[in-house]
Amino acid sequence: MSAKTKKQIVIEAAAKLFSDKGYSAASMRELAGRVGLEQASSLYNHIKSKEEALQEICFENARKFIDGITSIESDIEHPTEQVRALIELHIQIATNDITSVTVFNDEWRHLSERPLSEFLALRKDYEERFKEIINKGIKSGVFKDMNPSFALHTILSALKWIHYWYKPGRDSDLENVRKDIMLLLMSGLRSH
Amino acid sequence: MSAKTKKQIVIEAAAKLFSDKGYSAASMRELAGRVGLEQASSLYNHIKSKEEALQEICFENARKFIDGITSIESDIEHPTEQVRALIELHIQIATNDITSVTVFNDEWRHLSERPLSEFLALRKDYEERFKEIINKGIKSGVFKDMNPSFALHTILSALKWIHYWYKPGRDSDLENVRKDIMLLLMSGLRSH
Repeated sequence: MSAKTKKQIVIEAAAKLFSDKGYSAASMRELAGRVGLEQASSLYNHIKSKEEALQEICFENARKFIDGITSIESDIEHPTEQVRALIELHIQIATNDITSVTVFNDEWRHLSERPLSEFLALRKDYEERFKEIINKGIKSGVFKDMNPSFALHTILSALKWIHYWYKPGRDSDLENVRKDIMLLLMSGLRSH
Repeated sequence: MSAKTKKQIVIEAAAKLFSDKGYSAASMRELAGRVGLEQASSLYNHIKSKEEALQEICFENARKFIDGITSIESDIEHPTEQVRALIELHIQIATNDITSVTVFNDEWRHLSERPLSEFLALRKDYEERFKEIINKGIKSGVFKDMNPSFALHTILSALKWIHYWYKPGRDSDLENVRKDIMLLLMSGLRSH
């Protein structure tokens, strides 16, 4: 097993631990136990600190959102279809690795100063680009006349229950969740 | 100053502390400092534990939601107007005491077993009653044909950004937030 694979195992176990107990209450000792290492000090061969694991988790998820919106901006033209694809992106990320996305959503506040500013800059970039798509739809009259920023926050927030609800095995329901969320949010947004 | 008023001050300071640092990282010593007590032990005249403060905060907010839906069920008849009033209730609670509602939303998981089950039972009661209103609207054809549970979670989740965004002084914007949220969610829900 390569060092990189072991690091990945450690990070996945860290995500599970942070998700179970919250980042603050998690210890390197418990993380060591969960990956079958007797000494917490052995962990330092794989990650430098508890925060390194948190950073990996937060930035990996942030990257998925940035990569997703970049493709959507270049491959899709109409704002309605772009928003549909963005909602789909959120649903996919939320159900693909629930543990990791839960930590990303709930624990990013514990990043230290420099990674926190980088993280917030990525989030701001994502939100600005999503808002610009909504704004384009409002200006062209396909979306209702609203404040694009309020519409953005309402939509982003509306999508945040899926990773709490979803469990592998709920995939038949997932199709219906997707349908109902699309229906509710898109008809809420569209002007006709 | 009566003992009860001092308790209220301690609980408000606890809400602020939990909101700033998260419940896990907060200490009775720091709470004592914030209310001007030199010894953490002096706090025990007012609250038995850090968790007592968390319980007070969580149950006070839960109570506001339960009382709100109870009035709405008895005073309003039409499901459209009931859902409007419920959205209004969420906006009011979110902006009335931001600190307290933030702790209620983000820190309830730290309740110990027995209060946690009580808290979850109240939440379930609230959600079931809200879902029943949505269901009534779907069955009578005023709302779109969706799974009432998925519509409920999407709406509840959609309302959860307001307390992060709102600051006293943003009241002129608040009117517009209210208008846009109502427009987006109600037109998302309504069948025509």
